Amino acid sequence: MKVALDVMGGDYAPGEVIRGAYLASQEFKDLELLLVGKASLIEDCLRSQKINFKFSIVDAPQKIEMGDSPALSVRRKKDSSIVKGIELLKNKEADAFVSCGNTGAIVCASTLYLGLIEGIERPGIALVFPTLRGLSLIIDVGANIDPKPLHLFQYALMAEIYFKRVLNKEAPSLGLLNIGEEESKGPEFLRETSSLLKENFSNFIGNIEPKDIFMGSCDCIICDGLAGNIALKVSEGFAEAVDYFLISEVKKDFLGILALGVLRKSFKRFRKMIDYAEYGGAPLLGVDGVIIIGHGRSNAKAVKNAIRASLREFETNINEEIREKVKN
Amino acid sequence: MKVALDVMGGDYAPGEVIRGAYLASQEFKDLELLLVGKASLIEDCLRSQKINFKFSIVDAPQKIEMGDSPALSVRRKKDSSIVKGIELLKNKEADAFVSCGNTGAIVCASTLYLGLIEGIERPGIALVFPTLRGLSLIIDVGANIDPKPLHLFQYALMAEIYFKRVLNKEAPSLGLLNIGEEESKGPEFLRETSSLLKENFSNFIGNIEPKDIFMGSCDCIICDGLAGNIALKVSEGFAEAVDYFLISEVKKDFLGILALGVLRKSFKRFRKMIDYAEYGGAPLLGVDGVIIIGHGRSNAKAVKNAIRASLREFETNINEEIREKVKN
Repeated sequence: MKVALDVMGGDYAPGEVIRGAYLASQEFKDLELLLVGKASLIEDCLRSQKINFKFSIVDAPQKIEMGDSPALSVRRKKDSSIVKGIELLKNKEADAFVSCGNTGAIVCASTLYLGLIEGIERPGIALVFPTLRGLSLIIDVGANIDPKPLHLFQYALMAEIYFKRVLNKEAPSLGLLNIGEEESKGPEFLRETSSLLKENFSNFIGNIEPKDIFMGSCDCIICDGLAGNIALKVSEGFAEAVDYFLISEVKKDFLGILALGVLRKSFKRFRKMIDYAEYGGAPLLGVDGVIIIGHGRSNAKAVKNAIRASLREFETNINEEIREKVKN
Repeated sequence: MKVALDVMGGDYAPGEVIRGAYLASQEFKDLELLLVGKASLIEDCLRSQKINFKFSIVDAPQKIEMGDSPALSVRRKKDSSIVKGIELLKNKEADAFVSCGNTGAIVCASTLYLGLIEGIERPGIALVFPTLRGLSLIIDVGANIDPKPLHLFQYALMAEIYFKRVLNKEAPSLGLLNIGEEESKGPEFLRETSSLLKENFSNFIGNIEPKDIFMGSCDCIICDGLAGNIALKVSEGFAEAVDYFLISEVKKDFLGILALGVLRKSFKRFRKMIDYAEYGGAPLLGVDGVIIIGHGRSNAKAVKNAIRASLREFETNINEEIREKVKN
């Protein structure tokens, strides 16, 4: 299987991205990696890191920066790693594309070059994250900030298939993120979505409140991109604040430092639980191809896990199933 | 000063609400409490709790339930504690109203009976919360789920005044909650709001990302009600999950239990940091009166602190200042 990897995207690119590629090449047999980025930079980086593995380089001298306007940069920077990488997918020269770069540009280029699965109206970014009772999936976390009920309905359809095939759970539960459990709560478009989901999904459990996301009471959480992005990023920030606060509190006295030694394992497990790097990237569902968006702050392990997510999604061939389901 | 307290609102009403009233009566001199609720229930409750303090009872035999439709219940349940309490404010028989009941109904009844401050288009719920660097305020956390740039602009205006007067900080910084720091990010209405704030507030620091909320990098965070509600409730749920996870992890072995003993103080401080009960209720800004909305799960301490918040707001007379500022 061939994965095109955007070597220029992410806060720690290209170094950590290339190290992630190396880790993936060691772990996954039959993986062919296409490193997309500025060729001279990739070669320098490999030399300085003294690592060696099987890969090809696809030269992409331009870079879309994190602050660039998605629509403009995708049109103007045809030689960027994001556009080049997605073109590889379009031309069947790669089976999946993985990038930790500008999310908006990835969404935009994917929609423009690959198109959407027939019948799907908008792509959505799904994210698998840990809860107290196992993994949950939330869609959309930022692709679509002007959502209509039909978009959210289609997210539910795609989330269900993804959860079934990639996370191996039959009939995962579906919930709609809203400010209250009651059907009467929230803005008009969420109330309409709720009716649509109720009519069409027997496993729809109704509105789910933001405070219950981490309890694991719902497998697939459906929401608009603004809400989902805020939910995701607030928890990330909160986790960091908690971590910082607890550690600085505990270190205030000598007994605390001793106790911290004892508790190291627990803290480690806690950090692992809240560490996005463990869970790989976020699949962009609805586009006609396998696209994984990694976190901007991805380290090598996160890049490796994003590549793993692309392998799993490609193997399960969920896009075919989505195509069939939307037809009906 | 006279505070009307909704004794029927909240998950632990009337018991904890009445105990909160008692605590407030002990702590704040010159406080006159009007307990609004079903008179017989209040009397029973006081008898069983064996507490005694100065108060009057305003009989309100109806109750607006948490799941009731705000608009309908406010019109149909004229004898509910929420409607009766807000009428006391309207008739100048009380200086402030405090309730832990149905948030939508409180917003609706306040707007209907008290009206908005002249020139203000929509009320907003503000919430003061702890960060790593002190207190911040976020507005709106759920009153207005269909926000226009002008509404958000007016939230900024009110937040600034509240922060200056009630939290005693000159020139608090203002930020707009959005999915990215760059001005180009987010939906149209947030981009327009950003321009408006930039033009009118010298202390506007631009977009603030959800992950930075708890870092305390911004005093007043402006957002739409859906986003704010999600930010707030997600962190609440996350805090609970963290708490639960850490404690259950640590208790897994004997050394962990010993270490937990040592760390008890730190955990306690952490819990206090994330305990909404410490920070009192949320002021409903923009309505022509002092309204404090308490958390649905308020215990006696939270009720007492919500009453304290109403006293502070009334004393500072910020509504007059808002009225003046909006005129210009």
